Amino acid sequence: MTDLPPDDAPPSEDVRTSRAATLRDVARLAGVSIGAASKALNANGRLSAETRAKVLGAAKALDYRPNNLAQSLHRARSMTVGMLSTDSFGRFTFPIVEALERRLFDHGIAVFMCNATDDPSRERRHIEQLLGKRVDGLVVTARRADKRAPVVPAVRSLPIVYVFSYVDDSDALCLLPDDEGGAKLAVSHLAGLGRKRIAHITGPRHFEAVRLREKGWRAALSEAGLSARQADCRSGRWSEAWGREAVETLFGRGGGAPDALFCGSDQIARGAVDALREMGLSVPGDVAVVGFDNWNVMTDATRPPLTSVDMNLGALGGEAGAALIEMIAGHPLAGVRRLPCSLVVRASCGARGPAAA
Amino acid sequence: MTDLPPDDAPPSEDVRTSRAATLRDVARLAGVSIGAASKALNANGRLSAETRAKVLGAAKALDYRPNNLAQSLHRARSMTVGMLSTDSFGRFTFPIVEALERRLFDHGIAVFMCNATDDPSRERRHIEQLLGKRVDGLVVTARRADKRAPVVPAVRSLPIVYVFSYVDDSDALCLLPDDEGGAKLAVSHLAGLGRKRIAHITGPRHFEAVRLREKGWRAALSEAGLSARQADCRSGRWSEAWGREAVETLFGRGGGAPDALFCGSDQIARGAVDALREMGLSVPGDVAVVGFDNWNVMTDATRPPLTSVDMNLGALGGEAGAALIEMIAGHPLAGVRRLPCSLVVRASCGARGPAAA
Repeated sequence: MTDLPPDDAPPSEDVRTSRAATLRDVARLAGVSIGAASKALNANGRLSAETRAKVLGAAKALDYRPNNLAQSLHRARSMTVGMLSTDSFGRFTFPIVEALERRLFDHGIAVFMCNATDDPSRERRHIEQLLGKRVDGLVVTARRADKRAPVVPAVRSLPIVYVFSYVDDSDALCLLPDDEGGAKLAVSHLAGLGRKRIAHITGPRHFEAVRLREKGWRAALSEAGLSARQADCRSGRWSEAWGREAVETLFGRGGGAPDALFCGSDQIARGAVDALREMGLSVPGDVAVVGFDNWNVMTDATRPPLTSVDMNLGALGGEAGAALIEMIAGHPLAGVRRLPCSLVVRASCGARGPAAA
Repeated sequence: MTDLPPDDAPPSEDVRTSRAATLRDVARLAGVSIGAASKALNANGRLSAETRAKVLGAAKALDYRPNNLAQSLHRARSMTVGMLSTDSFGRFTFPIVEALERRLFDHGIAVFMCNATDDPSRERRHIEQLLGKRVDGLVVTARRADKRAPVVPAVRSLPIVYVFSYVDDSDALCLLPDDEGGAKLAVSHLAGLGRKRIAHITGPRHFEAVRLREKGWRAALSEAGLSARQADCRSGRWSEAWGREAVETLFGRGGGAPDALFCGSDQIARGAVDALREMGLSVPGDVAVVGFDNWNVMTDATRPPLTSVDMNLGALGGEAGAALIEMIAGHPLAGVRRLPCSLVVRASCGARGPAAA
C-alpha cells in the first residue's frame, strides 16, 4: 500500500464542484501538515486550539468528509458485505433482503447487491468482484429455500451466511423458515376447530419445502388422532389453476369429501377457494381453508380472506444480518437454523379473530 | 493519502487462511521489490522473464488478487454506485433493480442497495454512508412512479438518475414509463377490435400514473371517434375488490353497459373479470378487458388470461444503468424521459394471438 502516488492536485474552486475534498486539501487550506489535519479531524493527539479550529474551518469550507475507502485500507474491515442471489430477487427474497440491509446499515455496514440468476459463471465473477472490494462477508440467498452448491470464495475464511437457501456443508450457517413447524401450526389449528378430514394441496415435490410441509401435515394429523389418506395429499404446481384442479378432483369423486384444506401456498389456496365457491360449497362453512406464505395480495383478495402461515421472512433477514455481524466479529457459526413460522388467522378457517390462533 | 501506515504483517501460513494477501506479501515471497511485483502483475515496465515468473508464482501461491479499494484510491472512480429506494423495494422495483444491477455489473460497477422506506433521516444517513464510500453515482427509485423531493448530496456534482420516480428539477434526469402512451395502446387496441363503449376502472387519482393513464384513455377514445363518458371513468383503490365493486356499479345501472374495460392495474382487471363472470357476462364475448402492469401472477390466473400493458421495467432499469454510466463518464444528462410501454395480448380482449397486437 506504500506505492500510492502523491495527490498533487492543487486545491482550487474545482475541489468544491468537481471532486470530493481530500485530507490534503484540508491541510493545505488550513496551512498545516497532513498529520496535524488528521489529528484535528480525529480529535486525537496534541494540537493547539487554534490549529484545531483552523483545520475544522477548512474542512467545513471544503465540505470535507473522511474517505471511507482510505479508512478501509487502514482497518481490517471494509464495512461492506455482498448479497448474492443465485436466482432472481423475487417476492420471497425481498422482505429478507430489506430486513438484512436494515440490520447491517444500523451497524454501519453497506450491502452490495449481486444477482447471478442461476448462471454459475456470473456468480463466480460476482464473487471475484466482491473479493476485490474486500467485503467483510457474504449473504447467499435464493428464490425458494432449496439446496444449492456451496459458494467457495478464494478467501476461505470469509464469513458466509446462507439464508432461504442451504448447502450440504456442516461448516456452513444456513437460516431457513421452519416449514414443517409452520405446516403443523396450520393443521393443528384446523384439527382444534373440529375438522376431521384435512386434505393437503401443495406444490411440486422436488422442492424441499413441499416435502417438509407434507411431513408437518402428517405429524399434526397423527398428533390429533386423524388419519392421513394418501389420496388426500395432492402435489402439483404453484398456481391457482392447480388449486382449482385439485379441488375438482378431491370433491368430485365419491366416498365423502374433506372438510378442510391445508394448501402449500396462498396461490393454491386462492384457486381452491374459488373452485369450492363455484361448486356451491361454502368456505369456511363446508370447508375450512388455510394457505401458506401470508402474501397479502392473495390473502386479501380471497373470498373470504385467507388464513395463512407466515414464514416471518423479515425476522429471517434480520437474523441473517445479526449472524453475519457476529461472524465478522470473529465468532464462527455453523449449522442449519430453522426459524419459527406463525399462523395469521382470517375468516377462511372458520375461527374469526386472532384469539383462536 | 500519504499517511497510510506500512503493512508490516509478515507473510506466513496465516495469510492464506486469515486475511487476503497484499502486494507486499507477494513481493516478499517472490524476493523482489514491491515496485517489481506491481510491474509484473500489471504486465507493464521492464522486467526479466524470470522475475515476472517468480512474482506470478508467488501471487498464485498466496491467492493474491488486486485490492480494488486501493485501486479506487488511485483512480478518480470507486466503481461503485448507490441504489436508494425511498420506499420499500416492491414488485415494481425488482425488475428495475435487477436490470440496472446487471447493466452496471457488466461495466465493472457494483451496486450498494439502500432502503430508506420513506424515512428522510434514514435517507440522509444512507447518502452520507454512500458518500463516505465514494460512490461514483446514485440511482433513486420508488415503489410507484410518483414525485419526490430531489436528493441533495453534499457533493453537488454527483451523477444522479431517478428511475420510476421523478423530481421537479429541470437539471435532474428522470426515467419513467410512458403511462399515457401505454393507456392509448390498450384503448386503441380495444377500439380497433370494434368495441364502442370502453370504460376505465383505475386507482387513486393522487397517483400521477392514474392521471396520465386516464388522459391516454380520453385521447385514444377521441382519436377513435368514441366519447369518454364521465360516469365510465371510475377511480378507486388498487385492488381486486375495487375492480369487483366498480363492475357492479357500471353494469348494475340502467342505460346500457360498456362492451370493454380498460383497467388501471391487473389486480383491478382481475376483480372486474371475476365480477363479470359472476354476473353471467362473458369475457371477452360480452365485455373485453385489458389490464395494466402485465404481472404474470394476475394475468395467468385471470379466467380467461388477461391482456395487459407492460411497462417494460427491465428496459427502464437497463436504460437507467446506461444513463448513469454516461453521466459518470462526464456527460451530464437531464430531463424527463418516458420509455414506451407495450401491449401483451392474451384472451381477455377478444383478439387471440399476438398478431392482433
